[in-house]
Amino acid sequence: MTLPAGFRAAGGACGLKASGALDVGLIVCDAAECVSAARFCDSGVLAAPVVVTKERCELSALRAVAVNSGNANAATGEAGIAEAVRVQEAAAAALERHPRHVALASTGVIGVLLPGERILAAIPALVDSLDSDPAAFATAIRTTDAIDKVAELTVGGVRLTAQCKGAGMISPRFATMLCFVQTDAVLSAEQADRMLGAAVAQSFDRISVDGQLSTNDTVILMASGASGVPASDDFATALNATLLDLALRIVRDGEGARRIGCVRVRGAGEETVERVARAVANSPLVKAALFGGDPNWGRIAQAVGAALPGRAPLSFDIAIEGVTVALDGAAVPYDRPALIEAVAAAEVLYEVALPGEGAQAEVFFSDLSYDYVKINAEYTT
Amino acid sequence: MTLPAGFRAAGGACGLKASGALDVGLIVCDAAECVSAARFCDSGVLAAPVVVTKERCELSALRAVAVNSGNANAATGEAGIAEAVRVQEAAAAALERHPRHVALASTGVIGVLLPGERILAAIPALVDSLDSDPAAFATAIRTTDAIDKVAELTVGGVRLTAQCKGAGMISPRFATMLCFVQTDAVLSAEQADRMLGAAVAQSFDRISVDGQLSTNDTVILMASGASGVPASDDFATALNATLLDLALRIVRDGEGARRIGCVRVRGAGEETVERVARAVANSPLVKAALFGGDPNWGRIAQAVGAALPGRAPLSFDIAIEGVTVALDGAAVPYDRPALIEAVAAAEVLYEVALPGEGAQAEVFFSDLSYDYVKINAEYTT
Repeated sequence: MTLPAGFRAAGGACGLKASGALDVGLIVCDAAECVSAARFCDSGVLAAPVVVTKERCELSALRAVAVNSGNANAATGEAGIAEAVRVQEAAAAALERHPRHVALASTGVIGVLLPGERILAAIPALVDSLDSDPAAFATAIRTTDAIDKVAELTVGGVRLTAQCKGAGMISPRFATMLCFVQTDAVLSAEQADRMLGAAVAQSFDRISVDGQLSTNDTVILMASGASGVPASDDFATALNATLLDLALRIVRDGEGARRIGCVRVRGAGEETVERVARAVANSPLVKAALFGGDPNWGRIAQAVGAALPGRAPLSFDIAIEGVTVALDGAAVPYDRPALIEAVAAAEVLYEVALPGEGAQAEVFFSDLSYDYVKINAEYTT
Repeated sequence: MTLPAGFRAAGGACGLKASGALDVGLIVCDAAECVSAARFCDSGVLAAPVVVTKERCELSALRAVAVNSGNANAATGEAGIAEAVRVQEAAAAALERHPRHVALASTGVIGVLLPGERILAAIPALVDSLDSDPAAFATAIRTTDAIDKVAELTVGGVRLTAQCKGAGMISPRFATMLCFVQTDAVLSAEQADRMLGAAVAQSFDRISVDGQLSTNDTVILMASGASGVPASDDFATALNATLLDLALRIVRDGEGARRIGCVRVRGAGEETVERVARAVANSPLVKAALFGGDPNWGRIAQAVGAALPGRAPLSFDIAIEGVTVALDGAAVPYDRPALIEAVAAAEVLYEVALPGEGAQAEVFFSDLSYDYVKINAEYTT
């Protein structure tokens, strides 16, 4: 894999991960102009790198991103902000850019002060090793991810690459993840912002591993313009498809996940279908049944009802992989062997129809497995 | 254990549980007058027994409750309502009462039509075996419960007994459970309703196993007045204590639970402390860390932030079992061995302080274990 023209990346190890695995990386744009856009999570507890990037950077003109894994630098107060600023300024100096053009992103354990000096010590070697291959960078941003989440495509004469991480603490309000997207297309700042916003809304915003909003979510799109080709509608479509593909890889790689579900709710107002879809996607009972391949559609009915208190009697239809199990709020006879086979598939579609206006919401989610519990029972010990 | 004067109970097996275990029960009041009060969950998908009890019963003058486990009779439509009515009418006829004095409650799998004829066939033997011992009744209402949840006490010359079930699909909005309370105290209907409401609000309303609101929750208090002693403030206190004790037993017996947590949030407005407490109690990350005895307080910070989007930077303090780990939103040095020991206890207290008005909310919750996943991955298979 090669980055689009105008970009270089590097990854290294600075000891934030006790294992010695790669844990620090840089993405840099060398083009004459660079246009960018960014999205962040909206938690009340925002990590220092998110605060520093939002408050001190020119988000439409980012030139570089300095990323670390192994430490989220969240809930670390003013000391955490100071460490983040130190990393930002050191990276900017090494790259001969103003700090306002250098974004930060961190992922890892919350509540431990980032030892910024380790990153500072690693920066010279990182800068020396910058090249067009993003493999080490993509590895350096991983935490509990079991697979690389990278993408590369060419559309209408422009190139698009992306590196993404995320496996737990993934909420449909916004995916708990980092994603960096590079293109050599020519985009205005307004275009970049609009296209990134639309692509995030239909990808990372539509997935759930565990319904837990993170403190560190960051998505950054950078466009070098090096191809000389303006971004077209096809580019926007490709960006959407790329981010959706990466988002689904996050769900598939959800901590301990064995299979993924998709809940599609239609028929009622927008707010209602959204609420019901998220209630189903985040229900540990639905997720555990998905894990076990248990055709227990009562879990879906329960989640629908819980999302709409005081609305009984509620008319709803439920179909799983096309097998209708409930109509107008009531069980109907169905082909149980067919359903048992359907819920054992790698991906399971749950459709819920509500009466009303005809809005639709879709959320992709992972199952709840023994390994999710194991990973999160022993995260820091 | 013996029921208060004026009450009899029975339990039997009618084949709703494939195992042949007890699955049907009756509680009856024989006193000249009987005063009652009831509370139900507010799901948009209410089970047929809840609908029939709410719509067809005189809730302040219930005489009997007919309960079954092994089938929730939820999401079963008009056919489910008809089966529930059939059970209600048969029980009323056998007890020589009007159906409006006979409440229903069901618990078990959702979406399977209740075979009412099995309960009908069991009613004569149940009525014949009614006596003052509630043991068989208490067993007959269990599903995944690993322990009996019964209580008995005497306060100021009156007696109070209760039988309760609940282990999964337990939400802090209202516990997914059944609870039946009997007393020989003299209560007005207004008193019964007020006291039950207050007791539920500080017990079943304050627990979470998995944040999943049920379709069948029912709490019924019946007072025979047989003691001739009016209910006092001490009675109200005892009722509160009894329901809280039963609620905590539900949490302790949460599906697969190994230890329980209590989150106490104080300092901000009522709505805020409530939202934050429930976010912490329902977080699968917090629950998995509790299961593993992982002193990862970042999970608490993450849940607090997720509950209050857009509020960064948020000032909060966190203490776990009295060990302060964060002040004013930031990590502070703490005694890690002491914390590791504290989080391995059978009960763990998490305290979160927010700036503001000084409201307080407390929620008790169970951990998230391998066995929770196992139980719910294989519930119907």
